[in-house]
Amino acid sequence: MENFTFYSPTKFVFGKDTESQCGKLVKEFGGSKVLIHFGGGSVVKSGLLDRVKKSLDEEKIPYVELGGVQPNPRDVKVYEGIELCKKENIDFILAVGGGSVIDSAKAIALGNEYDGDFWDFYCGKAAPQKATPVATVLTIAAAGSEGSGDSVITKEEGMVKRGAGGECIRPKFSVLNPELTQTLPAYQTACGITDIMAHVFERYFTNTKDVETTDRLCEAVLLAMINEAPKVIANPNDYQARANIMWAGMVAHNNIVGVGRSQDWNSHGIEHELSGLYDCAHGAGLAVIMPAWMKFVMKHDVMRFAQMAVRIWGCKMDFSNPEKTACEGIQAFRNFLNSIGMPSTLAEVGGKAEDIPTLVKNFGLAEGAKTGGFVNLSSEDIAEIYKLAL
Amino acid sequence: MENFTFYSPTKFVFGKDTESQCGKLVKEFGGSKVLIHFGGGSVVKSGLLDRVKKSLDEEKIPYVELGGVQPNPRDVKVYEGIELCKKENIDFILAVGGGSVIDSAKAIALGNEYDGDFWDFYCGKAAPQKATPVATVLTIAAAGSEGSGDSVITKEEGMVKRGAGGECIRPKFSVLNPELTQTLPAYQTACGITDIMAHVFERYFTNTKDVETTDRLCEAVLLAMINEAPKVIANPNDYQARANIMWAGMVAHNNIVGVGRSQDWNSHGIEHELSGLYDCAHGAGLAVIMPAWMKFVMKHDVMRFAQMAVRIWGCKMDFSNPEKTACEGIQAFRNFLNSIGMPSTLAEVGGKAEDIPTLVKNFGLAEGAKTGGFVNLSSEDIAEIYKLAL
Repeated sequence: MENFTFYSPTKFVFGKDTESQCGKLVKEFGGSKVLIHFGGGSVVKSGLLDRVKKSLDEEKIPYVELGGVQPNPRDVKVYEGIELCKKENIDFILAVGGGSVIDSAKAIALGNEYDGDFWDFYCGKAAPQKATPVATVLTIAAAGSEGSGDSVITKEEGMVKRGAGGECIRPKFSVLNPELTQTLPAYQTACGITDIMAHVFERYFTNTKDVETTDRLCEAVLLAMINEAPKVIANPNDYQARANIMWAGMVAHNNIVGVGRSQDWNSHGIEHELSGLYDCAHGAGLAVIMPAWMKFVMKHDVMRFAQMAVRIWGCKMDFSNPEKTACEGIQAFRNFLNSIGMPSTLAEVGGKAEDIPTLVKNFGLAEGAKTGGFVNLSSEDIAEIYKLAL
Repeated sequence: MENFTFYSPTKFVFGKDTESQCGKLVKEFGGSKVLIHFGGGSVVKSGLLDRVKKSLDEEKIPYVELGGVQPNPRDVKVYEGIELCKKENIDFILAVGGGSVIDSAKAIALGNEYDGDFWDFYCGKAAPQKATPVATVLTIAAAGSEGSGDSVITKEEGMVKRGAGGECIRPKFSVLNPELTQTLPAYQTACGITDIMAHVFERYFTNTKDVETTDRLCEAVLLAMINEAPKVIANPNDYQARANIMWAGMVAHNNIVGVGRSQDWNSHGIEHELSGLYDCAHGAGLAVIMPAWMKFVMKHDVMRFAQMAVRIWGCKMDFSNPEKTACEGIQAFRNFLNSIGMPSTLAEVGGKAEDIPTLVKNFGLAEGAKTGGFVNLSSEDIAEIYKLAL
C-alpha cells in the first residue's frame, strides 16, 4: 500500500424528502446568496426546483437561477454562469441535477474566484486552489460528483472533454434522495450504473500489491451493483434498490475504495473522446470501451482478472488455466451490461471505424508518449482498443 | 434503508513517516497552543513523542504534555487534563496513542469547553455540543476512535464504563502510520483486530431490510481482516498487513459501512462491564462476549447468520437446515478468534460466575427495562449471555 491522504469533508444528507433541508444546510455552510444551477425541464416539471426554492425562502436566503446545462456540460454555459455569479455577488452554488450539472457548477465555482479563463484549470495551465462553495441535490446516481473533487467539461470548439480536480470543489453538502431518481428512464439508469461500476474498476485494476482492504471494498460495491441493478431495471420505482445504488455511487468515487493504490483512468479517457465527439451518454460509452480495454490489458496481470472473475462474477477458478477464468470474468461483465440494456459496440453509440484516427488524435498524446495506468498506453494501443470495440 | 446523515470530515494522513506532518496539520486546522496527550512510556521510548514535538517545534507551535493515560481510560486523568488545558489556555489537543488516549483526549476536549462536570456527557445529563479541536497520531489499530465522534471513559468510583458521542469530538485530522503499530505484542494486536471486527458486526446485525450496499461493505472489511490478521500474528513486522488492518480499523468505525440501518451495540455494552470490573483488554472481552451473544440471538434471524456464515466464513449453505449453517458461521468466528490467540471464556479474562449479578447490575437496566438492538435484551437475557460465555 502506498502513502495517501484521504479527506472527504462533504456532509451527506440521505433519504426521502431531504431536499427540504437545503435552506438550513446552505445556512450551516455560510451561504448568503445562492446560484441554483440546473439542467433541463425535468427538475422544473417534477416540482423539485420549487421545493428547493421554498427551502431557501424559508431561511430567507436570496438566489438567482441558471438552467440549461446539457449532458456532457459545455464551456459556454460555464462562462454564462461565471458572469452571472460575478454580477450577482454569488457566494454559494447549489447544483440541482446529475453529474453534468454538478460538474458545470464546480467549473463556475472555480471561475468565479479566478481572474483568468476557467479553462486554464481544465487544460492543465492552472491548478484549482480556490472556489466558491458548491453543494448538490443529486438526481442521478452515476458520476459520483456529489462526493468528489472532480469536474469534467466539454469545450465546444473541437468538442474536447477535459477534467479538473481539487479539494476546493468538493461539495460542502450533498442531498441524496433516491426518490428523485425514480423517474429516470431505464437507459439513463443503466448508464449511471455502468459509470459507477467503471469508477470502481478504474481503481480495482492496480499495480500496487497488498491492497486487500481496498480490493474487498471495491468488490463490495460491485457485488451490490450486480444485485441491485436488475431490480431497478425491472421496476424503476424500487426505492430500496435505488437507495442502495445511490449510496454505492458515492462510495465508488469519493476514493474510500481507492486510497493507497495506483489507479487506471484510461477507460474514462478513451471514453471521453466518444462522448465528446458523438455526444453519447458517458455510461454507454464506458459500456463499449471498458470490456475492450479489459481484453487489451488482461495479459498484464491475468491473476487480477481471475480474482475479478471469481470474487465478483462468481466464476469457478480454472487452476490449470487462469487465463480462461479471466476471460470468463470479462465476458460476464459484458453479459451483465447487455442484460441491463447497455450497448456493446462503437456503432451503437454512433461511432465509425473511420473516425478512430480522429478519436486518437483528440486524445492528444504527443508522438511516442504513453498515458499512464495499469498498462501504459500509446496512441497505437488506444486505436487498438477502439478497434476491439467495433 | 433508513434516512441518514453521514459526515466524516476528518483528514486522514496515512503511511510511513507521516507523524512528521503533525506541526503543519495543527497549523492548517488553526491550533496555536497544543496539549500532547499520551499513555505509557512506549511513545517516549520509541522516539515517537520526540518526532511529534520536533514537528510542532518546526512550526513554532507551543505545547504542554500530559501522559499517563491507562487502558480503559479513567475520569481522574480527564479531570487532570481539563485543569491543565484551562490553566494553559490550550486550543488544540493532540492524542498520541491508541483508543484509550484518543478517548481521554476527547473527554478533555469536551470538559475544556464546559462549565459543569465533564461526566455529564457520559452519564447522559448533557449532550456534547462544543469541544476543543482534537487530532490523533494513532499507534494501535483497534478502537476506530481516530475517525469517530465517540469516546468511552471509566469512572474509578464503582469502575463504571460509559460512552459519549457527538460530531464536535470527531478528530480534525488523524495521522495513521502503520509502522507505529509494528512494535505491538501479538496479544494486543489480536485484541485490536477483534475490536475492529466487532465494530463491523455490531452494524451487520440489523433489522433493517434492503441494505445490500452496506452489507457488502461490512463483509468486505471482515474478509480483509480474516486475510490480514494471521499475517501480522505470524510476523509483527509485516508492514503491508499492518497497513491493511489500520485502514480497515478506520473504515469499520467512521460509519460508512453502517449508515441507513439499525445497529446493535449490546455486545459492546455487555463487554464494557467486563473491562470495567476486571480491567481486561476490551478486545479480549469482546472475543468472549460476541460469540456468546451471537448464539443467544441467532434464532431471531437465522438467515442473516447463514449469510454471515456463507459470505464471510465461506461455509457451504445447508439449504435444508439453514440453522446448521448459521451455527457453523458462529463457530468459524470462534475458531478464528482462537487462532489469533484470543480467549473464549469469561474465566480467561478474570471473570467468575458469582460476579454475574454484579456485572448485570453495573449494566444498569431499570427493573423490567430492555436495552435496544438486533434483539432487545432484559437483565435476565444479559445474565444468560454472560453464562453462555462461562
